[in-house]
Amino acid sequence: MQPFSIASQLAVVLVSTRNPLNIGAAARAVANFGFNDFRLVDPYDVAFREAVSAVGGAHVLQSARVFATVAEAVADCSLVVGTTASQRRISQQPLERPEPGMMRIRIHPGRTALMFGSEKFGLSNEDMSFCHTLIRIPTIPDTPSMNLGQAVAVCLYELIREEVPVKPFGFEGVSGADAEQLTAMLHQVLDASGYTNRITAVSTEQKIRRWIRRLRISRKDAPLLLGILRQILWKFGRH
Amino acid sequence: MQPFSIASQLAVVLVSTRNPLNIGAAARAVANFGFNDFRLVDPYDVAFREAVSAVGGAHVLQSARVFATVAEAVADCSLVVGTTASQRRISQQPLERPEPGMMRIRIHPGRTALMFGSEKFGLSNEDMSFCHTLIRIPTIPDTPSMNLGQAVAVCLYELIREEVPVKPFGFEGVSGADAEQLTAMLHQVLDASGYTNRITAVSTEQKIRRWIRRLRISRKDAPLLLGILRQILWKFGRH
Repeated sequence: MQPFSIASQLAVVLVSTRNPLNIGAAARAVANFGFNDFRLVDPYDVAFREAVSAVGGAHVLQSARVFATVAEAVADCSLVVGTTASQRRISQQPLERPEPGMMRIRIHPGRTALMFGSEKFGLSNEDMSFCHTLIRIPTIPDTPSMNLGQAVAVCLYELIREEVPVKPFGFEGVSGADAEQLTAMLHQVLDASGYTNRITAVSTEQKIRRWIRRLRISRKDAPLLLGILRQILWKFGRH
Repeated sequence: MQPFSIASQLAVVLVSTRNPLNIGAAARAVANFGFNDFRLVDPYDVAFREAVSAVGGAHVLQSARVFATVAEAVADCSLVVGTTASQRRISQQPLERPEPGMMRIRIHPGRTALMFGSEKFGLSNEDMSFCHTLIRIPTIPDTPSMNLGQAVAVCLYELIREEVPVKPFGFEGVSGADAEQLTAMLHQVLDASGYTNRITAVSTEQKIRRWIRRLRISRKDAPLLLGILRQILWKFGRH
């Protein structure tokens, strides 16, 4: 299954990752969003392929390629996008929000490397010198540094979100006719129960009409509500 | 620091979370995006406050409130948004993409709970019956289930991304005048070096002009490139 056309053109590259659990978690995010080209530059722990945190992303972890240097890892990529938590890099390389950075990847007619630095230090200045652009996820200045797997997930989500077909999710609201039927039947119930005062009958009807509209009853729930009201009316009639 | 106005109106609620490390990682994402109302319903491990994975989010973890039931955890919330990895819930509650779900939270004039289920089972049908709407992050059907902390990070990112002020990130390209100066100077260098053939001089000039435009040289890099070309011309003049 390859739902996102961008998936075949992106390599996710982790540089000098310390914790195998973070490599596993990153692999899981890579799998979640349908990517599969996963590359590691000089990981500190060679046992990363055993990471239990890869839940569902074991195939990504197993096929990960290991490189000694950033230059080798991005050798076949014509666009390299780095990530950083720092806002001070702006003078060295272009630093962008994720949206334009990911848009560059989407419109790039070749292979792209999306690069993440180590947990403790991020990408080094030398790593960044291989990048055409840098992106920063908009975290708050007090707590800017994200967990590695979370940063990978946010970037890949931003990358594929535009490609997801918009399905008619959510529930469609009740039609005007059904809303009016509900209004009338609720009014009957209130009348029969003695709730409605004859003097205020008109304002009560409007109150009920407005209330039914505010409720935003779904098309699906209208029969349920009508059934309840009908049952109450039936019970009133028996007594 | 409170950069996002939505931050004071959202409670992140984790239900029946098994692994304290996931609670810590979620707390970190909560802190990264400037939120602070963090609630736990019936966590399996009471030692969650010690989670080392909360890097930078320890204050969120320390102030987390623990509730016995979902009903108590959302008692002060007038909007409850649940998350699910399943696409089959659609018949029970409205299921939406993150964008409309988060838009609902942004425009809601009261406190909202954003709820995440356990690592293994997600939110139960009973948990979901407390929700006004459900959202699903668009993962691929083969590997739909995300890591808890990553799902929290993606949702909060989606929530605040519209609130981030768009700063003029990236580098501005070189002006037409500067591009033309670069074209002229590179042409001089090629001329002086003997690269330019008299017969093809005009087409060479156009070739260089097009090439300079394709390069997308930034305003900042123009002086660097002009300096290099000037130095080469100077060196030519000395010989």
